[in-house]
Amino acid sequence: MVDCLFCQIVQRKIPATVVFENEHVLAFRDMHPQAPVHVLVIPKPHVSSVSEMTPEKMGLWEKIYQAAQQIAKQEQIDGSGFRLVVNNGPNAGQAVAHLHLHVLGGRRLTWPPG
Amino acid sequence: MVDCLFCQIVQRKIPATVVFENEHVLAFRDMHPQAPVHVLVIPKPHVSSVSEMTPEKMGLWEKIYQAAQQIAKQEQIDGSGFRLVVNNGPNAGQAVAHLHLHVLGGRRLTWPPG
Repeated sequence: MVDCLFCQIVQRKIPATVVFENEHVLAFRDMHPQAPVHVLVIPKPHVSSVSEMTPEKMGLWEKIYQAAQQIAKQEQIDGSGFRLVVNNGPNAGQAVAHLHLHVLGGRRLTWPPG
Repeated sequence: MVDCLFCQIVQRKIPATVVFENEHVLAFRDMHPQAPVHVLVIPKPHVSSVSEMTPEKMGLWEKIYQAAQQIAKQEQIDGSGFRLVVNNGPNAGQAVAHLHLHVLGGRRLTWPPG
């Protein structure tokens, strides 16, 4: 998508601090971190939201979560714990219309989750 | 797992308000709801946490998210928006050691997510 911020990060047209990459996904640090570790994992193909995941793209979830597990190890939060969050649509405050999984750790996270 | 609360819900030994079920996953209302809609989606096989997802079980993520999309439609929060949350380990406050995806909607969710 030409106007998509995250597609432009995938294409390296906009800079980001990349922490993980493979052929399916890219992960980079959130520009407005809400915890000592705050990384976004996105699928490289453009998918706007959870609701727009079609059956043929559902396999991307496995790739996204494999990356999240790897990132938790890299960032050394797999022992202390972490929260994974996906916002979908207006009530959740989804800020960029390209699917992304937030990985938050390095501090105690409270309940409710927003 | 004999002593797992959620395995016992899967086996119908402990009651829950089930909203969705297929051969792979079960979904039921959270006993301590944090939003007008608050449903938990769990895989039927016992997996204790994100960190314990093995390569051969990773396909469960697709099943969990397919269910979440279906539940968002059933609960009529797919238009207004919803937040999906997975807690892993102590810092996230994971309360039951059986993997579960929280589906929260029906109100504006704030940021940060806990």
